[in-house]
Amino acid sequence: MSKQIQGNYFEDFKLGQQLRHATPRTVTEGDQALYLSLTGARFALNSSGTAAREVGYKGLPLDDWLAFHLVFGKSVPDISLNAVANLGYAEGVFRQPVYPGDTIATVSEVIGLKENSNGKTGTVYVRSRGTKADGTPVLDYVRWVMVHKRDPESPAPEPHIPELAEAVPASQLELPADTDFAQFDTGLTGQPHLFEDYQAGEQIDHVDGMTVEEAEHQMATRLYQNTARVHFNQHQQAQGRFARRIIYGGHVISIARALTFNGLGNALKVAAINAGRHTNPCFAGDTIYAWSEVLDTIEIPGRSDVGALRLRTVATKDRTCADHPLTGDDGKYDPSVLLDLDYTVLMPRRF
Amino acid sequence: MSKQIQGNYFEDFKLGQQLRHATPRTVTEGDQALYLSLTGARFALNSSGTAAREVGYKGLPLDDWLAFHLVFGKSVPDISLNAVANLGYAEGVFRQPVYPGDTIATVSEVIGLKENSNGKTGTVYVRSRGTKADGTPVLDYVRWVMVHKRDPESPAPEPHIPELAEAVPASQLELPADTDFAQFDTGLTGQPHLFEDYQAGEQIDHVDGMTVEEAEHQMATRLYQNTARVHFNQHQQAQGRFARRIIYGGHVISIARALTFNGLGNALKVAAINAGRHTNPCFAGDTIYAWSEVLDTIEIPGRSDVGALRLRTVATKDRTCADHPLTGDDGKYDPSVLLDLDYTVLMPRRF
Amino acid sequence: MSKQIQGNYFEDFKLGQQLRHATPRTVTEGDQALYLSLTGARFALNSSGTAAREVGYKGLPLDDWLAFHLVFGKSVPDISLNAVANLGYAEGVFRQPVYPGDTIATVSEVIGLKENSNGKTGTVYVRSRGTKADGTPVLDYVRWVMVHKRDPESPAPEPHIPELAEAVPASQLELPADTDFAQFDTGLTGQPHLFEDYQAGEQIDHVDGMTVEEAEHQMATRLYQNTARVHFNQHQQAQGRFARRIIYGGHVISIARALTFNGLGNALKVAAINAGRHTNPCFAGDTIYAWSEVLDTIEIPGRSDVGALRLRTVATKDRTCADHPLTGDDGKYDPSVLLDLDYTVLMPRRF
Repeated sequence: MSKQIQGNYFEDFKLGQQLRHATPRTVTEGDQALYLSLTGARFALNSSGTAAREVGYKGLPLDDWLAFHLVFGKSVPDISLNAVANLGYAEGVFRQPVYPGDTIATVSEVIGLKENSNGKTGTVYVRSRGTKADGTPVLDYVRWVMVHKRDPESPAPEPHIPELAEAVPASQLELPADTDFAQFDTGLTGQPHLFEDYQAGEQIDHVDGMTVEEAEHQMATRLYQNTARVHFNQHQQAQGRFARRIIYGGHVISIARALTFNGLGNALKVAAINAGRHTNPCFAGDTIYAWSEVLDTIEIPGRSDVGALRLRTVATKDRTCADHPLTGDDGKYDPSVLLDLDYTVLMPRRF
Repeated sequence: MSKQIQGNYFEDFKLGQQLRHATPRTVTEGDQALYLSLTGARFALNSSGTAAREVGYKGLPLDDWLAFHLVFGKSVPDISLNAVANLGYAEGVFRQPVYPGDTIATVSEVIGLKENSNGKTGTVYVRSRGTKADGTPVLDYVRWVMVHKRDPESPAPEPHIPELAEAVPASQLELPADTDFAQFDTGLTGQPHLFEDYQAGEQIDHVDGMTVEEAEHQMATRLYQNTARVHFNQHQQAQGRFARRIIYGGHVISIARALTFNGLGNALKVAAINAGRHTNPCFAGDTIYAWSEVLDTIEIPGRSDVGALRLRTVATKDRTCADHPLTGDDGKYDPSVLLDLDYTVLMPRRF
Repeated sequence: MSKQIQGNYFEDFKLGQQLRHATPRTVTEGDQALYLSLTGARFALNSSGTAAREVGYKGLPLDDWLAFHLVFGKSVPDISLNAVANLGYAEGVFRQPVYPGDTIATVSEVIGLKENSNGKTGTVYVRSRGTKADGTPVLDYVRWVMVHKRDPESPAPEPHIPELAEAVPASQLELPADTDFAQFDTGLTGQPHLFEDYQAGEQIDHVDGMTVEEAEHQMATRLYQNTARVHFNQHQQAQGRFARRIIYGGHVISIARALTFNGLGNALKVAAINAGRHTNPCFAGDTIYAWSEVLDTIEIPGRSDVGALRLRTVATKDRTCADHPLTGDDGKYDPSVLLDLDYTVLMPRRF
């Protein structure tokens, strides 16, 4: 029985440990088409190669979240196969664009460990780095997950919780090489609003809703070669707490991002992930809505052509977002809220 | 709330108005694979690059209806987001072939307006033109839609109904440049029947049936970046007349076209759309069947290698087509009939 | 009514008959992405172009089973449209790798015929050969199917049952040209076990389960342009024995192969199909599990870099495989068993 991958348990992780994740993945135009088909994304740089080249890209880049899901998916068999929950994200920086033909691989470093007081589980913090075959950095981010212990009797490690930035600062954003958004044509997106038109505190209901089907989230999650069993195995899930397959939280992120096109159509690129929580599980048949708040408007040093918006995007299920649902009177997340994501996007400036 | 796209209402349209639709789209081999996967298409020129090159194409062209759906999808946010119904098509001409790597954009011109007597809605006629980034024409067609008024009190425009051709004449068909079908090998399609074998009035049952799933029509419609809400939002549709998501009528067209391979296997290319009506809504779980009538056999000026067949293809749901269902004794469409499409295809001539 | 494809009946087949199957198919990166998305495959050579080139491939080759399904799909309209059942496979040899851009066509030869004693059906044996447009062989295999007679009164042909090898011998395996697996890096797969680590008789539970949805198997089967009606037409199937669409047996093979990554992660390539039976029908909603037995470990003449494992992989539905389910006390297949496949894979040797 020893040849199967059983995944790591809490006591298998050591501070400073490096994990090289399996099966690098060459990305193609097929992945891009499937991503559009599964999420409804319409952002210009990932839809039109012509638009992308006009601002300095070498071709049609992969959607940033598609790149994220591929980098993330690689890490699942080693990091979260025995996870109870994906607890949070921080310090995510999207680096150079990914193009069809690039081969992506992921390595992770264990940067924190803390056993829970129940002695049955612990939290593992990892920094994962996605790179191309030639070493070009694609994306790195920290996530922390609650993982089962194999043996509750095994001793607890020295607790170590890493210090993580509350948000990625402007100085650490990495803009794609050789880009210039000064001449960006808003006719491409049909939306006139640019960086200067958004203010901190502004809230936007993205109006549209998208119902998710079992085949869709399974296809998306397999495309990313994410093997977490809760997404795929109804025979096993039927015995579990929800009696349903749970939709990969990243699929909810992708659909929320696609919905934000309506109101944030010129938020051309995701630059950073500051924080994020999957607050409730999403199931097939749920209709996802989203709203966003502008948390901050950020000037990028040395760039007059483009600025950054720090956004909070909240996704809900089966609940419209005109009133910006978030928490109840008790301060807890509303049961309709699936996702509370704090991230940074790039938007052209008015010239 | 002003940043969201709310779509145009009837009083927003002006005769002669030009609309440039958002988010051009670079098409890829990924789109072609998804199209096969979602529709079951098997026509030779869109399946075999070898077959396509042998008759003069530069590579494997996009299926004509895939090109149509992409051109059409672009227009939805501006034309039909607030539409009650898509009423008809006319004067559709497929122009130059689309290849992977081409970027397609759509513009539309308002060519007719007529308020309905109820004062709540009106009909908008638009001519939409799809082109490549270098201006090469892909497709143009007229459609008319019934659109809500934002304010029933707003004054009615001067009514103007455009004169539309009953069918695209042979002289206006545009054959792909540099093609020659004289040596077309029917062994590629397994069907021996060519242009000379079809007669006006002939009716063909296409025999096979195809059941459509929610995930399939959603994936197809998102691939075309068509944002009409009725296709995607079950939470909202549950409150509506049908309590179901409505399948994009274009998906029914694509499945009907794929079914016609059985009996019209050498109808290699769609050349024109003469007229078309979506006569009943299609829902997930419906099984689509189709039959066709040859309306006319058309010689193409200057071409001895290829002719055109004007076809009526009727698609039904949950009803086989051996008896060619269309209308009942009352002259109304049979409730099983989803689509009544009048279009023109190219077929090689016997040499 | 004569223009439709009605498929061949038992009396239409003649010993020695050659059938050229319709609609060659150009394969693309889109097909590869869909295949990953629909099956969850993670084997290194079909996931990473870098890994493939390192061992001598010219690019990212199509998954062997994707190539099989395309070659097989072409043959369905002529061989098995009127089939009762697909009875078996033999002498399958995967030949040269298929790359995006290749155009695949299939021809079959009738190599055996035997009418059944009921006089209503008969068994047809065909050898199908898939080739590229330039004649490069892709795959050939024998399958036999039970086919309806059109007319029970038509005379029985002289019975002829071909002699078929019990397994493809090592001398007939065809390794991709110019490959060398000596330096294969198991870090790519995250699994250390190589050829020398497996012994005949060893049994491996692949642990994971995968639930199949209607949209998924339909999309897969249409991608292969396989037109067998039982997979697509719920309106018709509702009247049948199972009242359900039956999932293409090849989709079960693909999912089983994908599951075997867990425990056979370095089984980089399928080299041969020795025998195979679809023992029970699979329906949407079923969760597929798999286990394998190593039937033989095979040295390949002239190759010290790679060996072959002859495997039996058994797929089940809604039943985990820790106890390797196969047959009951009565010797019959357990009702949970969907597939009993005898095939040969290549695995790098320890250097």
